[in-house]
Amino acid sequence: MSKTDPGRFFEDFRLGETLAHATPRTLSPGDQRLYTAFYGGRHALYSSDVFARACGLNAAPLDPLLVFHTVFGKTVPDISLNAVANLGYAEGRFLRSVSAGETLHATSEVIGLKETSNRKSGVVYVRTTGFCGEEAVLSYVRWVLVRKGEEAAPAPAEHVPPTAAAVAASDLVLPSGLDFSGYDFAAAGAPHAYEDYAVGEKIDHVDGMAIEEAEAQMATRLYQNTAKVHFNQFERAKDPTGRRLVYGGVVISTARALTFNGLQNTGMMLAINAGRHVNPFFAGRTIFAWSQVLDRAELSPTVGALRLRLVATADRPCTDFPDKDEKGTFPPEVLLDFDYWAAIPRRSA
Amino acid sequence: MSKTDPGRFFEDFRLGETLAHATPRTLSPGDQRLYTAFYGGRHALYSSDVFARACGLNAAPLDPLLVFHTVFGKTVPDISLNAVANLGYAEGRFLRSVSAGETLHATSEVIGLKETSNRKSGVVYVRTTGFCGEEAVLSYVRWVLVRKGEEAAPAPAEHVPPTAAAVAASDLVLPSGLDFSGYDFAAAGAPHAYEDYAVGEKIDHVDGMAIEEAEAQMATRLYQNTAKVHFNQFERAKDPTGRRLVYGGVVISTARALTFNGLQNTGMMLAINAGRHVNPFFAGRTIFAWSQVLDRAELSPTVGALRLRLVATADRPCTDFPDKDEKGTFPPEVLLDFDYWAAIPRRSA
Amino acid sequence: MSKTDPGRFFEDFRLGETLAHATPRTLSPGDQRLYTAFYGGRHALYSSDVFARACGLNAAPLDPLLVFHTVFGKTVPDISLNAVANLGYAEGRFLRSVSAGETLHATSEVIGLKETSNRKSGVVYVRTTGFCGEEAVLSYVRWVLVRKGEEAAPAPAEHVPPTAAAVAASDLVLPSGLDFSGYDFAAAGAPHAYEDYAVGEKIDHVDGMAIEEAEAQMATRLYQNTAKVHFNQFERAKDPTGRRLVYGGVVISTARALTFNGLQNTGMMLAINAGRHVNPFFAGRTIFAWSQVLDRAELSPTVGALRLRLVATADRPCTDFPDKDEKGTFPPEVLLDFDYWAAIPRRSA
Repeated sequence: MSKTDPGRFFEDFRLGETLAHATPRTLSPGDQRLYTAFYGGRHALYSSDVFARACGLNAAPLDPLLVFHTVFGKTVPDISLNAVANLGYAEGRFLRSVSAGETLHATSEVIGLKETSNRKSGVVYVRTTGFCGEEAVLSYVRWVLVRKGEEAAPAPAEHVPPTAAAVAASDLVLPSGLDFSGYDFAAAGAPHAYEDYAVGEKIDHVDGMAIEEAEAQMATRLYQNTAKVHFNQFERAKDPTGRRLVYGGVVISTARALTFNGLQNTGMMLAINAGRHVNPFFAGRTIFAWSQVLDRAELSPTVGALRLRLVATADRPCTDFPDKDEKGTFPPEVLLDFDYWAAIPRRSA
Repeated sequence: MSKTDPGRFFEDFRLGETLAHATPRTLSPGDQRLYTAFYGGRHALYSSDVFARACGLNAAPLDPLLVFHTVFGKTVPDISLNAVANLGYAEGRFLRSVSAGETLHATSEVIGLKETSNRKSGVVYVRTTGFCGEEAVLSYVRWVLVRKGEEAAPAPAEHVPPTAAAVAASDLVLPSGLDFSGYDFAAAGAPHAYEDYAVGEKIDHVDGMAIEEAEAQMATRLYQNTAKVHFNQFERAKDPTGRRLVYGGVVISTARALTFNGLQNTGMMLAINAGRHVNPFFAGRTIFAWSQVLDRAELSPTVGALRLRLVATADRPCTDFPDKDEKGTFPPEVLLDFDYWAAIPRRSA
Repeated sequence: MSKTDPGRFFEDFRLGETLAHATPRTLSPGDQRLYTAFYGGRHALYSSDVFARACGLNAAPLDPLLVFHTVFGKTVPDISLNAVANLGYAEGRFLRSVSAGETLHATSEVIGLKETSNRKSGVVYVRTTGFCGEEAVLSYVRWVLVRKGEEAAPAPAEHVPPTAAAVAASDLVLPSGLDFSGYDFAAAGAPHAYEDYAVGEKIDHVDGMAIEEAEAQMATRLYQNTAKVHFNQFERAKDPTGRRLVYGGVVISTARALTFNGLQNTGMMLAINAGRHVNPFFAGRTIFAWSQVLDRAELSPTVGALRLRLVATADRPCTDFPDKDEKGTFPPEVLLDFDYWAAIPRRSA
């Protein structure tokens, strides 16, 4: 048997099987600061231990997206080494915050399989769970288009799992002890509370952030994500684009950091409702973003939640909120259509 | 009210007002090591806990310039988002060293205002203070040219605050417990003590250090500095240079790290007397530096201080000490003219 | 006396002298995570504290090559600032693992000197030892071609020290407490144990990893390696290549990280038998690697060791194991020929 890992092809997946992903990973203060260096986030709850303690936490937790990328990275060798495209996310829930010093591992259950009509590939649906010890800290559904190893290989029975359009507000989990009654809006950078955001409201986040090849690679290596398209420039030179693809998580985290300008008090991501990488991103371009408030919920006397849609673009300011047309087609500059819940202090706090 | 921050324009500042800057920031071992990776500093006191303990400290403190950049970054959204140019620094004092795990926040008092003659902008003078808890750790004066939002807006009364040409030696603050009687010159890399430096002496630091776009951006994000000129390449492409500007602090820290070669025992910066970014720096070029000893002072039986002028250039070795001419004009390769105090062990130690 | 360091020339070295290198260095969790970001290593023992504890260690130790690069970096100002070429390594032994928080310093003994026939340079042989406090943690022999300062300077008596072709298995040192009886092969990513590798077996590591200029510079600065060829682009522009040379240690660490795919359970490097940088590496190219098993040894009831040859290339996949021809000449794409011992769990475990 070859000792090198060719990755799984579509016909290698079995409905209901659980894959235990390799390489447990201890997150450290070094990870969180590299995260800051890659994206420049400014949400106070993730920047200051003092601020976090005043909100009932032990210290500034690691950014939920750092946890997401780390867990996602573990799944790549087992799920998406032979992927054609990452199609979507759903039902993502952050089940508790993760602190520096904790160690993550992950498993994925295959919850759906559907061969494509040309029989060259198929969609694999997995529910991935990230753990600290035996405690689940993150769970999400992802579906991805995976090549077949042999075109003639028999396809597994088709099963497309139902996924919720969004995580229900009643399923959102707040970190134990979280209390925004002492939330310091001035220190956080803006007075806008839960009550200040209306469903339907759109926000252009104004700022633009360029991403360099070295930044994208370092971030992706930090997550131990091994997808060849992010690193093997020799092979990518044969692609029509001639370029390495930037890991989609870099786009998510960059756009999310840009949301600070307008969503200053929404640092704590609670759930990922949906996500789609509309177009690939290549280094050297500048990312812009806009958001829309999709829903609101009251989670505790001091904590509300906003359901937010986040759209990111490349080399295209978002003053006019570039969006899909009536046929569902996005302008070519749109990179990302992402839907999530974030906690926000209530004014009554 | 818009939830995004347009930044303050010149007419928005009021003499005497105090701005409490957002985003408190806990510094960690990750910050200090990224600082090493960005600049390559080798001053032993900031490299080794063992060395620092032998000098009476608890552990290697964070580099004073890391503290400076972090505090400076906090001020950008409130002071210089609409800046045309950063004009100068004065009266900067490091009031105590900062250790990994401590959290910084910052305030600025507006101490001067002066509209420019064309009425399109004005100079804002602020005194910024960085704090750990209630304890001031850094204080400095900075003046910056800020655009007016509306040219017709009435200008505030002109007030130009007096600033000292240099921090007096008697105002320098040594970290509590600092004692260079056990200073290990060999471990630090050179035998040169306080007594070996003469006022007027010039030192070419020989080495050159190239800076890449990714390095400059990562450093600037780490400091949570949000100035658009450092990140928004899409916008910068419209500028005649077509380039992102590298944050001036990257030039200061790179030049300062280069000073090791000739100033091996001056790791501890105590004060910033003056500083001027003579020309902008663009990534891809190589930074060189030279220093001149401006003054000397004896601070304790084992600790002296040197007042040093640090001049940095781009793509120009400093063997002949490039400097301003009699009219005060610098050669175009000069980037920085910086004046500071640093502690140095006395030989008697 | 000039306060700047011109570096030693060949005629400045004396057989038998010991050089105590400057700049002690505390390694932190930030160093280990930057190491991950630079190379993307996935060996579980160095990724997870939980995994490391199950193998009898206190926490995930720092990667042995991070220790090597840090120690190597200290030697550059004293040994190789005027080097023409780094010729080889031998007798490298990791004597105990190093944890975050520990401080390294280093000394080198000059064990051999040989002037070249053209009298313009000479080979300097040193035995370098890295220490934590008084405890040696790493020892290796290195030889390097160093320019003469004055061609007419008298050469020291020629002495070429004998070096072992490989570290004997009986000289390998396992970290105290290391026990692979509970080694979790699934978490580590592959079932291949000591018994699965045969002497002579070759493994193509499949994956390719591009390296950017910023990554190479940041890594090299982190190691406080001051060799001008890695940083001074202004000077390098005059070289026929016009390029900065990437520090050879970046090639070693990148290739070593690539070995995960096929050598998933060999994370712990125990010795460096030999190493040669066959060709220089320039940023922007993609590194590939292949390995061959040279020898095997049983070190404890649960721990075996493999002696491995690691060959790295640039922009050249290793499916056909590119190697030297019968005259010892390598294809131009080969960068590195490296020979080391690594620990691996025994199946009986």
